[in-house]
Amino acid sequence: MLNIGILGATGYAGAELVRILIAHPELKRLALSSVSFEGKKLESVYPSFASAPAELGSLELESADAVLEKSYIVFSCLPHGHAEAAAKRCLAKGGLFIDISADFRFGEDEEPYKAWYGKSYGDPELYAQAVYGLPEFNRALIKKARLIANPGCYPTSAELGLYPVLAEGLADPDSIIIDSASGVTGAGREPNQSTHYPECADSISPYKVGAHRHQPEIDRYLSKMAGKPVSSVFTPHLAPMNRGIVSTIYFKLTKAIDVKDLHTLYSSFYEDEFFVRILPLGLNASSRNVRFSNFCDISLHLSSNGKTGIIVSTIDNMIKGAAGQAVQNMNLALGFKETAGLTMLPPAF
Amino acid sequence: MLNIGILGATGYAGAELVRILIAHPELKRLALSSVSFEGKKLESVYPSFASAPAELGSLELESADAVLEKSYIVFSCLPHGHAEAAAKRCLAKGGLFIDISADFRFGEDEEPYKAWYGKSYGDPELYAQAVYGLPEFNRALIKKARLIANPGCYPTSAELGLYPVLAEGLADPDSIIIDSASGVTGAGREPNQSTHYPECADSISPYKVGAHRHQPEIDRYLSKMAGKPVSSVFTPHLAPMNRGIVSTIYFKLTKAIDVKDLHTLYSSFYEDEFFVRILPLGLNASSRNVRFSNFCDISLHLSSNGKTGIIVSTIDNMIKGAAGQAVQNMNLALGFKETAGLTMLPPAF
Amino acid sequence: MLNIGILGATGYAGAELVRILIAHPELKRLALSSVSFEGKKLESVYPSFASAPAELGSLELESADAVLEKSYIVFSCLPHGHAEAAAKRCLAKGGLFIDISADFRFGEDEEPYKAWYGKSYGDPELYAQAVYGLPEFNRALIKKARLIANPGCYPTSAELGLYPVLAEGLADPDSIIIDSASGVTGAGREPNQSTHYPECADSISPYKVGAHRHQPEIDRYLSKMAGKPVSSVFTPHLAPMNRGIVSTIYFKLTKAIDVKDLHTLYSSFYEDEFFVRILPLGLNASSRNVRFSNFCDISLHLSSNGKTGIIVSTIDNMIKGAAGQAVQNMNLALGFKETAGLTMLPPAF
Amino acid sequence: MLNIGILGATGYAGAELVRILIAHPELKRLALSSVSFEGKKLESVYPSFASAPAELGSLELESADAVLEKSYIVFSCLPHGHAEAAAKRCLAKGGLFIDISADFRFGEDEEPYKAWYGKSYGDPELYAQAVYGLPEFNRALIKKARLIANPGCYPTSAELGLYPVLAEGLADPDSIIIDSASGVTGAGREPNQSTHYPECADSISPYKVGAHRHQPEIDRYLSKMAGKPVSSVFTPHLAPMNRGIVSTIYFKLTKAIDVKDLHTLYSSFYEDEFFVRILPLGLNASSRNVRFSNFCDISLHLSSNGKTGIIVSTIDNMIKGAAGQAVQNMNLALGFKETAGLTMLPPAF
Repeated sequence: MLNIGILGATGYAGAELVRILIAHPELKRLALSSVSFEGKKLESVYPSFASAPAELGSLELESADAVLEKSYIVFSCLPHGHAEAAAKRCLAKGGLFIDISADFRFGEDEEPYKAWYGKSYGDPELYAQAVYGLPEFNRALIKKARLIANPGCYPTSAELGLYPVLAEGLADPDSIIIDSASGVTGAGREPNQSTHYPECADSISPYKVGAHRHQPEIDRYLSKMAGKPVSSVFTPHLAPMNRGIVSTIYFKLTKAIDVKDLHTLYSSFYEDEFFVRILPLGLNASSRNVRFSNFCDISLHLSSNGKTGIIVSTIDNMIKGAAGQAVQNMNLALGFKETAGLTMLPPAF
Repeated sequence: MLNIGILGATGYAGAELVRILIAHPELKRLALSSVSFEGKKLESVYPSFASAPAELGSLELESADAVLEKSYIVFSCLPHGHAEAAAKRCLAKGGLFIDISADFRFGEDEEPYKAWYGKSYGDPELYAQAVYGLPEFNRALIKKARLIANPGCYPTSAELGLYPVLAEGLADPDSIIIDSASGVTGAGREPNQSTHYPECADSISPYKVGAHRHQPEIDRYLSKMAGKPVSSVFTPHLAPMNRGIVSTIYFKLTKAIDVKDLHTLYSSFYEDEFFVRILPLGLNASSRNVRFSNFCDISLHLSSNGKTGIIVSTIDNMIKGAAGQAVQNMNLALGFKETAGLTMLPPAF
Repeated sequence: MLNIGILGATGYAGAELVRILIAHPELKRLALSSVSFEGKKLESVYPSFASAPAELGSLELESADAVLEKSYIVFSCLPHGHAEAAAKRCLAKGGLFIDISADFRFGEDEEPYKAWYGKSYGDPELYAQAVYGLPEFNRALIKKARLIANPGCYPTSAELGLYPVLAEGLADPDSIIIDSASGVTGAGREPNQSTHYPECADSISPYKVGAHRHQPEIDRYLSKMAGKPVSSVFTPHLAPMNRGIVSTIYFKLTKAIDVKDLHTLYSSFYEDEFFVRILPLGLNASSRNVRFSNFCDISLHLSSNGKTGIIVSTIDNMIKGAAGQAVQNMNLALGFKETAGLTMLPPAF
Repeated sequence: MLNIGILGATGYAGAELVRILIAHPELKRLALSSVSFEGKKLESVYPSFASAPAELGSLELESADAVLEKSYIVFSCLPHGHAEAAAKRCLAKGGLFIDISADFRFGEDEEPYKAWYGKSYGDPELYAQAVYGLPEFNRALIKKARLIANPGCYPTSAELGLYPVLAEGLADPDSIIIDSASGVTGAGREPNQSTHYPECADSISPYKVGAHRHQPEIDRYLSKMAGKPVSSVFTPHLAPMNRGIVSTIYFKLTKAIDVKDLHTLYSSFYEDEFFVRILPLGLNASSRNVRFSNFCDISLHLSSNGKTGIIVSTIDNMIKGAAGQAVQNMNLALGFKETAGLTMLPPAF
């Protein structure tokens, strides 16, 4: 019986994680924390959770302290800057800590974290142990990890989209442009003016152009994939949909390649990856085909003059971009089947 | 190993049924038919189905004939007026036939079927065997049925909403008004002007006011529930959302009742029904809390003068209103756990 | 040159009023107040207002005091309970005061206002002067009014839909049910959980069932129209669209009437009303056909047994339901052409 | 009195043109053609047009022949490949012909038109007379033109966004990437699978990646603006909204420039252009601020390393991208005020 704790269970990533874990085939008990709703049940925040199976636990919201006390596996869905103490406590008793915030994504490299998130490392050694939880890139390390930094949603789509061409040296590292659109759940549960229905429905709005903090995370891991420094341009847009990220990625090819060969490269590169689906040539990846699933769909294209590669990479931002990938990481770290609890197909509509 | 056939697998109800059955815990093989896409794979129609587990069958689309040949359990998702021959063939070999169209919903009563659907019964005895597949109303019969008429989506929401007050004689049978809004998937997969995005987004449109063919189905079963003739008024609206039906139901109370007593009545009436969730007083049922699930959420209200009962009943039109209820019926008829394959909680967003 | 002041110009009704007045053919200067944005320009709150013609005024946001000082015509878009002092000041200098809040809608009748809005009248005589600004019902009084209570959005749709049958005594006054859906702008500009995009997109949610404060306003004016007490049941729903109200209205007919005669009654009743469009029989009123206009579209139906009348009445909640009707009232009170500034046709999509 | 004819008045561009022309201040009579709806009134296709002022004409749909007979000014909203004969007939009697299709956009250059639209020129001299109707680029020629090729929607957004940097030589002509999202009205009135509500709501889908026929139009005019060949990469996406195009445009700077200087360049370049609004630095252009208007909003950004310019350019695809720009062209060609009939501000929500 797994004792699983979720810190910050009433945020969107937390609630999605609870939903996925409830349907996970391994026996478990869930303990949930919430600062705002302590003492209430999860279904009082999200009525959709009424009728959750009682054997999983009461789904009552407790203090973080209580959750840490009783849990061996801890998922942290707290805002950035709050994971360090909880991680130390969990690791001290030999547990597994999976952080969905950005806190551990820069590992030993404090400088960009400081610059973009405005926080310092309390215990640098802790950060140095963190493994970046992108299984398709880092599986071997994740299997042995105790402290996992779950990737950001935009970075997951961009990194999976670019990994094969970077690994093959086919993309000019100074030419990469990542143009992404995200559903509104990406902004979290807290209402604000830009997520107020009448101000985001029926329109597309770029934001933080040239200055989004997923940029350094993306560049950090694209550079690792390429084996040399990559400096990309990343622009996020808010789109009038609940879920999904579509990243349309452009890069100058370092040598001419036929689109069929590009397709062969990707198909072979991701041959054993259940969650990455390379679309047949001629199809375009769309967020509708991955919603409510852990899949990343990728379609491959060239510009009409053949000089620019165009990759469309799409995920459900709350699943492969957050809660689902976290469960995939848990499965790996605990030696379960990697796809356990994550085989749901996306609904057709 | 269950050999399950789905006729009309590329329509919306069919595709949703495939998705639910893929995740169903009983071992099965699926055979799928499609007139328009015979010879193709389901994923060529719905790319979301790529990566479906191969052990279930190839998800290749065949002729209805081929599907009927190899299947013991048959779900028919054909348009109205096409189920009779298939049902006879399936029953002749001792199979189970579950029809998602309206063909068998009027049982022995050909007249309203003729009047509203413009078709005659070829073999009236066949129709007389059909059991109306609303488990919360008809469970005992469904368990023994070989031919099941799966209820319409609007009727499911209305009938579950009204059953307790009708059974208790609390609702004046001539006063019932059912005002419903449905997501656009209710109109099926075939594009037309009224489902063209720019002509249904951002607006609410009533349709077939006073003349929708779910009306006679609703009245037929409300009358059975009440034990006397019920003549309701039913108005459907098209709403700018993919899934979900919200039925707001009004009726004159035959005697004064406190809203708390109304709540107690419903809670007790549906106490053992996993899929019917009676909301705490003060909450309002919303389609967002049942999407992608087989639940029916019901909230209870009175008008300010206490003379009119107001029931809000909401379902996912494609699941409890179609494919999910069909699987629930299959589970009952085959002696499986009634909730098998249907325990997924609705996502919180 | 009209000196027009708008109190609370940065709320949704205020901003829509500014947009309509900018295009109004009479010469005017606008003065705008805002508590939250005093000192800024309107375009800093709504970038859509950039390039507004300079001759109208700077569209700089000032204090309410400054606006009242320089304006002869005052529109108040303040929250409920704030209009009294401003109205007195405006009337004292012989101005015209049009209040978009509910403050004056109950006229001399303080009791329901107290009960539903929790405020008392400071100066009851002031309230007794207020004219309810529904031009199709109250035109003669509006022309002479100095203090106009602009109707609520739901009440406007319900009252225009029912006026002819009430005036003719065709509707049983105890049988009326008004089932309405509104776009999210009806909730105003302030973000909250229920208007957060991910929590209202893709679903329909009833709210304040049996207890919405537009109910007493509706009953008050339906009673005046009927010449006897009317006690209706009113249920609002939040729908995933920006604008528009669709009210589907049910009532028992007091005597049998053919739907053609009902249509003739409405067509003749509203023959001279530019803003009320009675649809040809067979069509259904839809909010998409009135968006961004001051029209009220009405379609007429009977239940299949002919005993219940069904009226669908739809408006743009921000225009005929708020800012447009306020301008219509201003036009009448100032002796302008009633349609001045309000002739824009709804876009087809 | 202007006699204006609209060929293909029941398509989306045609209907929007009618709506704009109805509110245009110059006296006119409208004659409308439709193949599918000849003999009906426009309001039978779009009920929103009920109550259009009678003095404009009956808004009855006639044959193209009848419309051409009575009109001096002709707007053609026919599908590609149908404008030539109508244009000749109109010009022969000294009229003004404005074509909203792509037929004349390549002027004397038949080759790309043949390659991308699959049609040949019947009378090459006719095409050579055509003036590309982008007023901000081609105003002097438009004033004298009798045959105007109204630009495509995507090209309008891209060309206005890039004109200043191309004219100044600041953008590397081989580095330009145009990533665009469009509302669904861009696909026209004809329903199909990809515009069926359930298949485009709640998701973003790229289409015709690397192969959209607006690409050669864009490159043709960017090259004219730059004074040298430009070869851009253009990717359109379908977004779940009715109207609006957002083009996010990337290019390598040929020399370092501060973002403030970029802003100064654009502000000064477009200083006299009423319809181009350069946003203050720090704001992001969003389609919500231009909907239902003829404005093009542009915001200016640099990548974090300062090497890539990022321009966001947004229009209403049906107005500045089609019908509004056509009216702007008519105003210029007839010597009216350029903004006549086009001063409507975008609604704030």
